[in-house]
Amino acid sequence: MTIKISIDCMGGDHGPSVTIPAAASFLRREADAELILVGQEQVLLPLLKKYKLADDPRVQIKNASEIITMEDPIEVALRRKKDSSMRVAVTLVKEGLAQASVSAGNTGALMAVSRYILKTLPGVDRPAICTILPNQKDGPTYMLDLGANVDCEPQHLHQFALMGSALVAVMEGKPRPTVGLLNIGEEDIKGNELVKQTALLLRADHQKGTLNFYGNVEGNDIFEGTTDLVVCDGFVGNVTLKASEGLGRFVKIVLTTEFKKGFFNKLGALIAYGALKALSRRLNPSRYNGASLLGLRGLVFKSHGGADVYAFEWAIRRAYDAAKYDVLSRIGATIAELMPQAETPRVADAAAEDVAAVVVGNASALASTETIEQKTV
Amino acid sequence: MTIKISIDCMGGDHGPSVTIPAAASFLRREADAELILVGQEQVLLPLLKKYKLADDPRVQIKNASEIITMEDPIEVALRRKKDSSMRVAVTLVKEGLAQASVSAGNTGALMAVSRYILKTLPGVDRPAICTILPNQKDGPTYMLDLGANVDCEPQHLHQFALMGSALVAVMEGKPRPTVGLLNIGEEDIKGNELVKQTALLLRADHQKGTLNFYGNVEGNDIFEGTTDLVVCDGFVGNVTLKASEGLGRFVKIVLTTEFKKGFFNKLGALIAYGALKALSRRLNPSRYNGASLLGLRGLVFKSHGGADVYAFEWAIRRAYDAAKYDVLSRIGATIAELMPQAETPRVADAAAEDVAAVVVGNASALASTETIEQKTV
Repeated sequence: MTIKISIDCMGGDHGPSVTIPAAASFLRREADAELILVGQEQVLLPLLKKYKLADDPRVQIKNASEIITMEDPIEVALRRKKDSSMRVAVTLVKEGLAQASVSAGNTGALMAVSRYILKTLPGVDRPAICTILPNQKDGPTYMLDLGANVDCEPQHLHQFALMGSALVAVMEGKPRPTVGLLNIGEEDIKGNELVKQTALLLRADHQKGTLNFYGNVEGNDIFEGTTDLVVCDGFVGNVTLKASEGLGRFVKIVLTTEFKKGFFNKLGALIAYGALKALSRRLNPSRYNGASLLGLRGLVFKSHGGADVYAFEWAIRRAYDAAKYDVLSRIGATIAELMPQAETPRVADAAAEDVAAVVVGNASALASTETIEQKTV
Repeated sequence: MTIKISIDCMGGDHGPSVTIPAAASFLRREADAELILVGQEQVLLPLLKKYKLADDPRVQIKNASEIITMEDPIEVALRRKKDSSMRVAVTLVKEGLAQASVSAGNTGALMAVSRYILKTLPGVDRPAICTILPNQKDGPTYMLDLGANVDCEPQHLHQFALMGSALVAVMEGKPRPTVGLLNIGEEDIKGNELVKQTALLLRADHQKGTLNFYGNVEGNDIFEGTTDLVVCDGFVGNVTLKASEGLGRFVKIVLTTEFKKGFFNKLGALIAYGALKALSRRLNPSRYNGASLLGLRGLVFKSHGGADVYAFEWAIRRAYDAAKYDVLSRIGATIAELMPQAETPRVADAAAEDVAAVVVGNASALASTETIEQKTV
């Protein structure tokens, strides 16, 4: 079965110089994949030739005249640049011409555009961003929300848990993934009001057998791999993710600096090259690139803006896998079956229709979509 | 000038087997320090002999018959074990017999006991836990709150910023330390309501020249050393700290495992021993052991429960430095001068008097003191 992915080739810090070679590399590995490369034709064509994609029958070019920059406010993405590569790529999913879309562009804009074009799934108040992180068990820990929603209510975290659980079940082939609620202690009495109320909802699901709720987990459990999924609000998730990225870079800088100091350290590094390479592979954030925008009526994946070719290829792969395993129907079915409708008034979706009329601030970084939430709901 | 520190010798995972040798090592390095070692005399005496402290004129033993375990609920620490080593050590500070106290015991219990015995400083609603973390600039980043308070209001974060700023000023000899507000983006429009409201208060202080407010910082800025101090609520701080600890351990495990795989990796590690040692030194969490309980009418320092001798000695050193530089008066003066009294009704302090009567749950981990807050305020 052929899987067709639309790629916003102009997004990210490096644009087509990264997205096109990543697309070429991905196509070489995946025989049943087809790609729709979206962007300014005159910019893309020379690169397609360079990477021998110009005559590839599995490649289609879709012209889009505009580019959403990392600095563009959400309103520009939504109201002005209607022919942006990002928007055209997502629209292909809406029209059923692609099964998933990938962009390395501005997260806030991508979330706003995707929500506006695709709408949310029935029963979902707010889409969330779900990523994977490495853990000690050499497996991935899924975590959401990473910044699409701040000031969450318990029912939002409840929805995140159900969506995330469905995602892990499909992507990892684990029918009953364990779900942890991020807290500051393991005991039930710990935490703020949000997590205490959320725990009640998740525990009720656990008792019904519809969710494999492990209980509270702490920050360290993310990297220990205590649970398959970690649920938190977007503020906590975003800060934790960025702190981890910052610590990771810090460790890398110290390692690199120290191994370059003096003859013996350099020699040792050369001899232990295998260990350093394995270390770099196991801790390489590129392998974990590609966050899902969950809760939409279509599959959209967000690559890190600074992704290199290798990392962007991982994001395409994730979108491809999600489409192949039909993540969307699974999440839709889970939410439809398990989400008590009373708890999810369908105001958010109607409000999203008006989102284009909303003037909001700059959305260059992750997590800016909450401003849309606040203004439209 | 002699500085006298009281040490809860029975606290922590290892008790006197760690605290006594750490005390001995500290005394060897610090000629003008005196220590009051608090705990069960019959347990301490043999160890004092072993570490040649039995006849040291700079060492005093203070018997305390009880021990607060890591599992003891706060109510046990407050109401039942009135002759605990932790409580006796803190009481010595209250009585002016010691200038600071150090414990590796149960954080929730230590915060509750310290608050009950010492009371909060005028103008402080809630004490906070402040720790230091390593950063790329090879300096420390101070961060608070680490878990004493969840569900904070803007005025609490405001107080944390003022207290933390005063602490950094004294401990690092920086008259105007930069203060960052932990958020999910740099722009003013980012974040949840708590940080947006807090930013207004901090910006007003900055305009008055009473606080060097840098603006919003993100998770990665903690380890990049963007600001001297990072302010956040206890939930976010605790999760971030524990996630960082978890990631640090993960990296260490991967490093150790990979360098032990095969002859060449082992040989390389041996040759590059200097680099690995420097790496371990720069990333060693022991060097950063010793969190301050800020906002109390006395200096109390919390060591990691699992601290080894080296790490516990660091915690003693931090307490010693804080006493030497008179951190307490500086924080008191800062709060008295800068904290608008209207914003800090003095209910919390009065309520703390009744804290002993409060029955709360288990307090074995960091961050459980919020239950006291909620029940007494």
